[in-house]
Amino acid sequence: MKLTSTASRKLAALSLDEIKEAQQEASRQFEEFKARGLSLNMARGKPCVEQLDLALGVLEALHARSEFANSNGDDCRNYGVWNGLPEMRAIFGELLGIPDDLIILGNNSSLQMMFDCISQGYTHGYSGCEPWCRQGDVKFLCPAPGYDRHFAVTEYFGIQMIPVPMLKTGPDMDLIERLVQDETVKGCWCVPKYSNPTGVTFSDETVRRFARLKPAAKDFRIMWDNAYCVHDLTDEPDQLLNIYEECLKHGTEDQVLIFASTSKISFPGAGVAALAASKRNIDDLKLRTTVQTIGSDKLNQLRHVLFLHDADGVRSLMKGHRRILEPKFHIVLDALEQELGGLGIARWSHPHGGYFVNLDVMNGCARQVVALCKEAGVVLTDAGATFPYGADPNDSNIRIAPSFPPEEELREAMELLCIAVRLAATEKLLYERAE
Amino acid sequence: MKLTSTASRKLAALSLDEIKEAQQEASRQFEEFKARGLSLNMARGKPCVEQLDLALGVLEALHARSEFANSNGDDCRNYGVWNGLPEMRAIFGELLGIPDDLIILGNNSSLQMMFDCISQGYTHGYSGCEPWCRQGDVKFLCPAPGYDRHFAVTEYFGIQMIPVPMLKTGPDMDLIERLVQDETVKGCWCVPKYSNPTGVTFSDETVRRFARLKPAAKDFRIMWDNAYCVHDLTDEPDQLLNIYEECLKHGTEDQVLIFASTSKISFPGAGVAALAASKRNIDDLKLRTTVQTIGSDKLNQLRHVLFLHDADGVRSLMKGHRRILEPKFHIVLDALEQELGGLGIARWSHPHGGYFVNLDVMNGCARQVVALCKEAGVVLTDAGATFPYGADPNDSNIRIAPSFPPEEELREAMELLCIAVRLAATEKLLYERAE
Repeated sequence: MKLTSTASRKLAALSLDEIKEAQQEASRQFEEFKARGLSLNMARGKPCVEQLDLALGVLEALHARSEFANSNGDDCRNYGVWNGLPEMRAIFGELLGIPDDLIILGNNSSLQMMFDCISQGYTHGYSGCEPWCRQGDVKFLCPAPGYDRHFAVTEYFGIQMIPVPMLKTGPDMDLIERLVQDETVKGCWCVPKYSNPTGVTFSDETVRRFARLKPAAKDFRIMWDNAYCVHDLTDEPDQLLNIYEECLKHGTEDQVLIFASTSKISFPGAGVAALAASKRNIDDLKLRTTVQTIGSDKLNQLRHVLFLHDADGVRSLMKGHRRILEPKFHIVLDALEQELGGLGIARWSHPHGGYFVNLDVMNGCARQVVALCKEAGVVLTDAGATFPYGADPNDSNIRIAPSFPPEEELREAMELLCIAVRLAATEKLLYERAE
Repeated sequence: MKLTSTASRKLAALSLDEIKEAQQEASRQFEEFKARGLSLNMARGKPCVEQLDLALGVLEALHARSEFANSNGDDCRNYGVWNGLPEMRAIFGELLGIPDDLIILGNNSSLQMMFDCISQGYTHGYSGCEPWCRQGDVKFLCPAPGYDRHFAVTEYFGIQMIPVPMLKTGPDMDLIERLVQDETVKGCWCVPKYSNPTGVTFSDETVRRFARLKPAAKDFRIMWDNAYCVHDLTDEPDQLLNIYEECLKHGTEDQVLIFASTSKISFPGAGVAALAASKRNIDDLKLRTTVQTIGSDKLNQLRHVLFLHDADGVRSLMKGHRRILEPKFHIVLDALEQELGGLGIARWSHPHGGYFVNLDVMNGCARQVVALCKEAGVVLTDAGATFPYGADPNDSNIRIAPSFPPEEELREAMELLCIAVRLAATEKLLYERAE
């Protein structure tokens, strides 16, 4: 199914009749799609089965093993080792460029480590300040579009979210530098590399400005979710400056909490999560962690150590992920270019890594596009989900998650998505002309 | 090393010279022990290596497996299934006598699930009430002696702890029924079967009185930590009434949160934890859990399902644990009987299961006994740790954890402990006579 000749020009420049014709064609194509009875889910950045198979070695790592002592002499099967296996901390240390003793391992979810850090701020506070629950209304900066689960955690604790526009270089730092003058602003969410969903990697200058930040609140914390630190998809991967080293230069290392995990390296449901922080923060976190649990799952950490070996092992594994993901990203980008290129009704990202393609459709059309796709059997991430409170001010942002569906299904889903974008855009243009 | 003849009578009934002689003998024996340069740790109820080896099959369960879908069709390696694998929930359901759909699985730590439940009360509240952090001073009932980590969680949140004496039938229910008339009392900790450290299993009447409890606080929660539900050590295991069923009879099912885990069934550091609760509580918990994490480690749950099969599989495995643990408990009890029996300076429990022997020495002697043991190289649980704020009002309670040391070391440690008890007691008696 190819575009007709009308589609080679910007839609808005067409005559009323031409737009009507384009709308009718899109509508006809849409009905055809509906009749196919598709059932696809592209809502989340879930790795596909072939990716999961790359890490099957993790499950074999403890096969026929009878020795479970780690380098400290602790039996990995028993209680203890509050901060996790030294060998696994060393792998994260190398990947993140942070000393191993500033790293704490969690279980399978870095989201849970973030939740717990926000909870700790809420119930006990940071840097000797009053807990946030006793400080009246507090606020968090939320670069947007961003990660819906960050926003959900913030909202759960009743922390007011202030959206900050995402630029090509990362969040609008002029705005952030102004906003942190407010003492009730207690932190900022960041996905600094291959940002969810924009694919933007923060520029060196953005990272430096975060490191130089002098917030009014002593208990301000940058939640640096480096979820895609090794998730490159091209030969020219983005380079992210090491924020911890930058902070050390300015004595601001207490204001950043850094997160990573193997969720999209080994298994989303059974990986290893990690948190890196300054000595003072680690001491604070230890007080809570040692009350909360008798240690994370060290056998799973041992499995990962035996399978991954070291940071190079991780990087080599990530090449396998790239081989599976890169063609899927091409399917998405090719479809967008072929079906929507030049129409002036959509812009999209060309990420060098990560899990998402960011699609901006005409203002006021995103909800309609997502609803149309759902009607025809393709579930996308809810429109608005990438903004605090689910409120996209332009109703234009759509997150495309190409990883999970098989290539053939992805092609179909993209075809439908492009039809839906054209249908919504032509309907909007017709409505405007009618006014 | 046997006791001398003076030891066959109650110490307090001896003449001053006889006590002096007993003190000197104990002192000499103690110095001999110190010279041995022991280094043993009996501080925690840690399973021993032989116990951990019983569950090695867990690690083989996914060997050479290529199929990871559970009965719902979800790939256990991927994100999702917020409440855990249905098959594993079914095993806990059968063990606890509670419908599977009222069970949520966690990761490796039931303590973490308890911490999170207390945290949820603190930050968000239960049953539509204000969060505890907004209600001013709130209190928790703490049957004592009890589990130090329960008390640590309570103290972490600044919740005032009210000790409640443990009787042979469980906590003093007359007192609890009076105390819950206070609306600021928000909950009560319980280890209802083979209680840590007393070994007491709550009587049917105690369970019924908990179920009939009508606390003034609508957001009152019984933290029912059924950690030792299948941890029998004799042919006449204690029977615990099903509190959930009892609560249903009185419409009080919202006031109990039930916890269990395989920490002492498979691996302490890598087991599966579970929480059971009423439909209304599960709905409340779901709101938090689905924000906090994208699911617990389902691969580890699948490992456990494949290894354990069902509740009978668990019970059969527990017979293996009993074969290892029962002789260790006998070593402890035989040593106490042989070295301290009839002296009138100590009482101890004869538990039918669980992980501890509860030793009560002469008032004012527990800290001294633990310090003496430490001096000679044997680390026991800190004296006082079994009471809120570490404050044993009588300074008499000592928790003996026989599971971890090899039998020979356990014998040595018990010999030392008995010497320390006699030394502390004779010193106390001499001090009293001198006054």
